[in-house]
Amino acid sequence: MTAAPAFAAIQAARARIAGSVRCTPILRSDFLDEELGAQLYFKCENLQVTGAFKARGAFNAVLNLPQALAARGVVTHSSGNHGAALALAARSRGIAAYVVAPRTTPASKQQNMLRYGAKLQLCEPTLAARQAAAERIIADTGATLIHPFDNADVMAGQGTVALELLEQVPQLDAIVCPIGGGGLISGTAVAAHGIDPRIRILGAEPLGADDAQRSKNAGAITPVMQPHSLADGLLATLAPSTFEVIRSQVHAVGTVTEEDIVAGMRRVWEELKIIIEASSAVPLAALLNGALPIAGQRVGIVLTGGNVDLQRLPWKQD
Amino acid sequence: MTAAPAFAAIQAARARIAGSVRCTPILRSDFLDEELGAQLYFKCENLQVTGAFKARGAFNAVLNLPQALAARGVVTHSSGNHGAALALAARSRGIAAYVVAPRTTPASKQQNMLRYGAKLQLCEPTLAARQAAAERIIADTGATLIHPFDNADVMAGQGTVALELLEQVPQLDAIVCPIGGGGLISGTAVAAHGIDPRIRILGAEPLGADDAQRSKNAGAITPVMQPHSLADGLLATLAPSTFEVIRSQVHAVGTVTEEDIVAGMRRVWEELKIIIEASSAVPLAALLNGALPIAGQRVGIVLTGGNVDLQRLPWKQD
Repeated sequence: MTAAPAFAAIQAARARIAGSVRCTPILRSDFLDEELGAQLYFKCENLQVTGAFKARGAFNAVLNLPQALAARGVVTHSSGNHGAALALAARSRGIAAYVVAPRTTPASKQQNMLRYGAKLQLCEPTLAARQAAAERIIADTGATLIHPFDNADVMAGQGTVALELLEQVPQLDAIVCPIGGGGLISGTAVAAHGIDPRIRILGAEPLGADDAQRSKNAGAITPVMQPHSLADGLLATLAPSTFEVIRSQVHAVGTVTEEDIVAGMRRVWEELKIIIEASSAVPLAALLNGALPIAGQRVGIVLTGGNVDLQRLPWKQD
Repeated sequence: MTAAPAFAAIQAARARIAGSVRCTPILRSDFLDEELGAQLYFKCENLQVTGAFKARGAFNAVLNLPQALAARGVVTHSSGNHGAALALAARSRGIAAYVVAPRTTPASKQQNMLRYGAKLQLCEPTLAARQAAAERIIADTGATLIHPFDNADVMAGQGTVALELLEQVPQLDAIVCPIGGGGLISGTAVAAHGIDPRIRILGAEPLGADDAQRSKNAGAITPVMQPHSLADGLLATLAPSTFEVIRSQVHAVGTVTEEDIVAGMRRVWEELKIIIEASSAVPLAALLNGALPIAGQRVGIVLTGGNVDLQRLPWKQD
């Protein structure tokens, strides 16, 4: 069973991926600071290679594979940012990356994975079909499954965001992350508390996929049966490995409506002049709607990705 | 008559504005590098305060005013990025910024200037009306006119982009800037050649506002009678001060169609995950359409601004 990474594993991940990923910039907005009565530091992982923080975990997992295993390739069933990140990491090591995706995956996402070199295999749009297809690839090729979050190397890689952030902005009071499967926030919590145990770790998720808040309240993983949100990167259910960290090291989880997400996304585009996807807007949305009070604090906000279909924006054109 | 700034004036400008503006990040794209067979370094002035490089020139001019003059305020007739930048610079010094703008100025641009504290005065949409309104304000208040480009302090401020860029990326072969009134490219040429006289300075402008190319070819300022382009920051005509630098220190000027501009803008949004306005896309568009050959070179591209009406994008939604 997967366990969350130790702080030392996150430090090792940082050294391992240093030549492969970017140290992303921090941006600020006087207008947003004024509105929230806080100091906000936006960590721009939308400017990361492949357009998302997922490159960190994927590179750490791929670069940490022993050569004999790596030679047979890697496989995943994430058709989103993890799929593209895994493809790039695999290509950098000269190995195959198999990505199983439902045949309903939008053409723009399929093309994006293909241009990073993924070997794409389409299947019926059910969880069972995806798992069966991945298992067949593993049986045929000996490829290693790199799960998008329930994997200690992936979590450790995602934790490197917080190591960088806390060097760029020392003495934060809190860090806010979106929660999907929980890989980012669990890596973040371990990394941040390894540096300063007083830092508050805050999670944010869509109301339509609020399994982290329900699970924390119930004290046990409590899936949402039909999760739905514009924030399509946040629909996964927690794994035991990520829930354990969320249970013990995440201080609060706030939820946001779909309208909150669109408003938060648009505010970031307008104020910071950067493109973030809906999933990335969830933390700011949870500050703006009051779900996570941070007045008077210095707060880091992880903007997780910028992969948006520019012909399908969630607001109207005049 | 205004003269172009000396290199030392640009260095002085940098020290003067250091506490007021941001050192903006450099972004890169493997896909664009591959497509153009070059190494591109995007200098992200869209991430500058007020969303445009104009903050540099405006702060330098405002901070360099003697106190007795400054106390009476500043005035300009630019309703775009210079207007907002001047308002912020003036507010930081506690003085008034009067901005004269045609009453046809889009509400979003008016609101943007107002939120930076501009005293907005609307007039009829003619050049004569704008000049008359500005002169009346000067007569009434004693405010100092800060022209958006025909001003040595403004040009010196804009030149600080190149000082920073060449520290962030030493040994560039070329720097590409858009040309409107020519303030940015003339500051850039003086700054870059003060560091390395071999750097090629390249200009790019819309075909519908190609007065820089015409003027360079003719050896004298040659205005375009009815300039028109989506790149609404590039419609101004060169001043003698900026033309003198463009004539002597700019190596080539390339032009782009409106379709080139939209395509370039969208490529930057997609590949770099940042928001740039149409005017900012003109340099990359002039590389992509072949007007400015740069194969095999290390090239800095100044992305000038990111102030876009997100409800009026120049491409269709599905």
